[in-house]
This record gives sequence, structure tokens and C-alpha cells, in this order.
Amino acid sequence: MKENSCVDVTEQEAAELLLGCEDVLILCHVKPDGDTLGSGFAMLHALRALGKRVRIACAEGFPKRYEPLYQGVDLEGQPEFAPRFVLAVDVADTKLLGKNEAPWGGRVDLCIDHHPSNRRYGRHLLLDGHAAATAEIIARTIRRMNAPLTQETARCIYTGLATDTGCFRFSNTTANTLRLAAEMMDTGFDSYSINKRMFETKSAARVAVEERVIKTLEYFCGGRVAVMVISRSAVEETGALDEELDGLSGIPREIEGVEVGITLKERPTENGGILYRVSMRGDRTCNVSEVCARFGGGGHPRAAGCTLEGNLDEVKARLLEAVSETLGAAL
Amino acid sequence: MKENSCVDVTEQEAAELLLGCEDVLILCHVKPDGDTLGSGFAMLHALRALGKRVRIACAEGFPKRYEPLYQGVDLEGQPEFAPRFVLAVDVADTKLLGKNEAPWGGRVDLCIDHHPSNRRYGRHLLLDGHAAATAEIIARTIRRMNAPLTQETARCIYTGLATDTGCFRFSNTTANTLRLAAEMMDTGFDSYSINKRMFETKSAARVAVEERVIKTLEYFCGGRVAVMVISRSAVEETGALDEELDGLSGIPREIEGVEVGITLKERPTENGGILYRVSMRGDRTCNVSEVCARFGGGGHPRAAGCTLEGNLDEVKARLLEAVSETLGAAL
Repeated sequence: MKENSCVDVTEQEAAELLLGCEDVLILCHVKPDGDTLGSGFAMLHALRALGKRVRIACAEGFPKRYEPLYQGVDLEGQPEFAPRFVLAVDVADTKLLGKNEAPWGGRVDLCIDHHPSNRRYGRHLLLDGHAAATAEIIARTIRRMNAPLTQETARCIYTGLATDTGCFRFSNTTANTLRLAAEMMDTGFDSYSINKRMFETKSAARVAVEERVIKTLEYFCGGRVAVMVISRSAVEETGALDEELDGLSGIPREIEGVEVGITLKERPTENGGILYRVSMRGDRTCNVSEVCARFGGGGHPRAAGCTLEGNLDEVKARLLEAVSETLGAAL
Repeated sequence: MKENSCVDVTEQEAAELLLGCEDVLILCHVKPDGDTLGSGFAMLHALRALGKRVRIACAEGFPKRYEPLYQGVDLEGQPEFAPRFVLAVDVADTKLLGKNEAPWGGRVDLCIDHHPSNRRYGRHLLLDGHAAATAEIIARTIRRMNAPLTQETARCIYTGLATDTGCFRFSNTTANTLRLAAEMMDTGFDSYSINKRMFETKSAARVAVEERVIKTLEYFCGGRVAVMVISRSAVEETGALDEELDGLSGIPREIEGVEVGITLKERPTENGGILYRVSMRGDRTCNVSEVCARFGGGGHPRAAGCTLEGNLDEVKARLLEAVSETLGAAL
């Protein structure tokens, strides 16, 4: 997968590249989360504070859920310029740039990322696969740039850390993640309002759709595998928006004894068929990234995804076969 | 409420009291949580490391859920002795000692607590109402005692911090809470296994009971108040154990726009009647501790409880009247 043209850089080298650049375009990944947006906006603040012209882009726009990250940024009135430096944050593959892939995928000057599966596109890559979030690497790079750490920047970094660690709950959380979050909190922004928005707030439609999907839970391999289905009807009948379905796929893995949780989200295809977006969560016992790779997907060892076409029973059977084989357990 | 005989002490004074004491009985509160147990066992380790005889007691025994806290402690074979020093941790009121109230409620030498509502029983009180968890005060006191910070002690402190802050998510979390948690993690225990057990693991029965109670959600005051009911039938039909209901009462308040979440748990009384254990969660806009106090209950400004007798509709009406009045909103 390694392309010859991509050069690994250290944080110091990345900081120097950024200090030397002008007219920067920052790119986030599609289906943006708190880490890609937090990383992007933190870097936007840092570079602007250093007097640079910066624009940020995300193929699908900026979701309302992450509004606190945009505070102080005029998204409608971003400066227009021909980018002379393109920075991709938390983007493991140019495919994840969505509609920004065509114009910019081949023109990325620096990618800062924490996904071990990073496809090594672009001219320079600052990759730390052990970082809990890309925001962690961004924070260290901003420090090396000697850019000011304002409340706005700190809020963005904090959001990236918190969202990628399930608010410091997941196994990627280290003592350093907590210390960095504490340093961000020292700037005095309201971290609770971020947590509340990211982790505690569910719409009534979300709660209703949760009830609907929990009903579909099925257990396999003696309870080591759980499968849950998010049907179109559950979504349509509760009126849940797409963003209100985020995190549902965490449910099956949270059940006691379940080592692999599989969530199937039904999607109509353009030609009238049905496909299933599969989200797989694993325990330490099963590398779900490898399982999903068999179906052309990928991700992290404990959280990965793929897409399958076919009817529900077929799709379930194919996935369960692969999972039971990996676990060495009978269905 | 202040009783003359209770003397406030500083952390240093508490440390000195503990350094000078012998044959210590540590008392935790009924319905033990991660903070009372984490605080108790951390202090047990610290005092034992200093060569003292220590026993720990909790009226209802030690729940399996908190097993990681008991590692290295022989609960069956605790030393027998006539206590010469009684320490209560995270116990706001002697009533919360359960069956230990009668023998020990009037004999507490030191209480270490973070509940502002502490009833000031006992001879000495180390109270910090701003601490996120009693474990935070315990950690600082242990530091002043110059007791070793072992992995066992650190695991207990971490669990207290994590459980009382919803894994660093609630508004009581400060930068210092995170730094202290980081310091604990530095000792090298497996913090993720704690988080997983405390925050990510639900039994299949729990998931099923969740589905049942979510269905009962009702909204009032234009969506600012949500009420949920945990009926006996939902519990019995899903086979959920009492400890599997923990945290359900967080659900209503997590719904977007809801400022006060009320959960009513149905309980049979001894004389064949029904009572409701009420758990109320508030936003910054409503001090639920004050609302619950009207019904003889209490707690924290954002999480409080009370108990009411009567039929469901009556109980709901009484609670909703009090809440709507506090919010200044029509039902």
C-alpha cells in the first residue's frame, strides 16, 4: 500500500511545514466526527493566529451537532483563494474526502492522522497510530508551532479527544490523553457543555429508534456475537435523522459476554436493491478490522465496517460465518 | 443541621488523625457505588501499608460488579478486632449506614465526604463539596499520609473518580479530576477493564428492560420534563436484577430539550401497597435537590431522589406540580 512519493514526517517537521505554508485548505473526512472537525478547526485557529489565510472544507458540510467547534468562525464567509497548501486531518484515504477527492485528493501536501490503516497518499504524512485521536497529534504540532492555545483551539482539541475516546472511556485512552484534556480545560472553556452535547443528548426520535432496534437483537456463538438491525422502517417511522443514528452500533458490543457486536443498517441502492452498511465492534479477542477487510471494508481492530448487498438473511449468514471462523466458535 | 460536636478538619489534620489511629473500621454507604467502595478500599490499602489493622464494612455486602476493587483483599477473612477508630467514606448521613447505623452511627471518628448535604455526624469531618468524588479527597489525604500509591490503591481511586463523573463526562469533572486520574493510570493498572465493566457492559436482561422502560417515556412542560416508569412487571418479565437497573434513571434527562428527567421505580411496600422511588436529574436550570427535599428526599443539585407512596398518577401529578413550579412552566 505504500506509495513511494509519501514522506513520513515528525511533529517538528510537520510544524515547520505548516509554519512555512500560505493559503491553506484544510480537508476533513466525510461523515465528519468530532475528531476530524476538532482537528481541522483547531489547526484553522492556530494557522489564522499566525496570520495565514485558511479555509476549511468537508464534503458534506458541517453538521449542527458540532456547532460549538465553529464558534468564532464565519463558515459562510470563508476567504476565497487558490490553495497553495492542502492539509488533510484524520483522513485515512482520499476516498474519504467525498466530493473533495476529485479536485484535491492528488494535491494533499500534508496529512495528519492516527489511523494505522492510512493509505499514505499525499506528499507528507504525520501518522501516530497510537494516538487516541488525531486531535492529540494536532495539539502537539500546534505546541511545536508556538501558536497560541486559545479557548477556541482548546475546545476543538478537547472535542476531538473526547469524541474519539467515548469521553475517555475506550481502551485508546492513556494517561497522556487525560493530561492533554486537562491542559485544554485549563483554558476555561465549558467542557461540560461539549460532553452534554456529544454524549448525553439524545433526541426523542433517537430514543424511539433505540427502542425499535434493541428489539431486533439476536445472539449467536453462545452469546459471544450479537446482531442488531436498523431497518428503514424503524428510521422512517420514528422520523430519526441520519445523524441521530450515530452510536447505535455500539449497543450490541456493550452486552455482557458479547465479544463481537454487528449492526446492519439497511439502505436502498440506486437500482432499487438493498444494501447493508455493516458496523462491527470487537473485543480484544477478535480483530474486526480483519473480518471487515474480507468484505472489502476496514477500520480499527476494535471498530470496523463494510458494505454488503443482498437480503438480510444472506448478509447475516455471510458475516456470521466469517466472525465465527475468526472466533473459532460454532454458530 | 450543624451539630456542635462535629469538628471540621483539613486534609492535613485528617491525615494526622489517620496516621495516629489503630484498629480501623471503614464504613461505606448502602447501595454502594464505585465512589464509596473505591474510597473505602483505597484507604484500607493505604492504612494496611502503614501497618495498621483495618476492616471494611458495607451494610449490604460487596456487589460483584465492583469486584476489581476487592482484588488482593480477603473479604471472607477480614481481621476481627474491637474498632478503636471508625472512618465513614462518602456517607452523607448515618441513615445511609443501613444496619451498621445502630452499632456505629454514633461512634464515627472521621467522615470523609464530598456531599454538600453531609449531616455533620461524628467527631471530625473532612468535607469538600467541590470534589467530583470522595475518592478525590481520599487520594489527596493518602498523599499527605505518605502512604505508598500502589496499583491496587490507584485502581480504587480511579474507579471512584470515574464512576462519580460518568467517566469524566459530568459537570463535576475538573481539569484536576483528569490529572488525578492520569496520575492513577501511571501506576499501570488496566483502566480500560474498569471502564468496560462500569460503563460499557450491559446484561441482555438490562438491554431488554431498557427497551421496556423507554416505551413509558412521557413529556411535559413543552418537552422540558420527561417522566419514565420502571414497573415491577418490566423488571420481573425481563428477569433484570436490581443492580441491572442502575443508570436507567439517567435516560430521561439525556433527551434533547429535557431539563428535568424523572424516573419512578415501582416498589411493593410491606403492607401490600405500592411506593415509588423517585430519581430526579436536573439541568443547570433546576435544582432537583430542592424539589426532592419538598418530599423528604435530597441529594445533589443535579441528581436527587425521594420516595412517594400512592398510585402512579397521583405520584406523577405531585412531582410534576413541584417541578413545573420550580421551572416556572405550565404542564
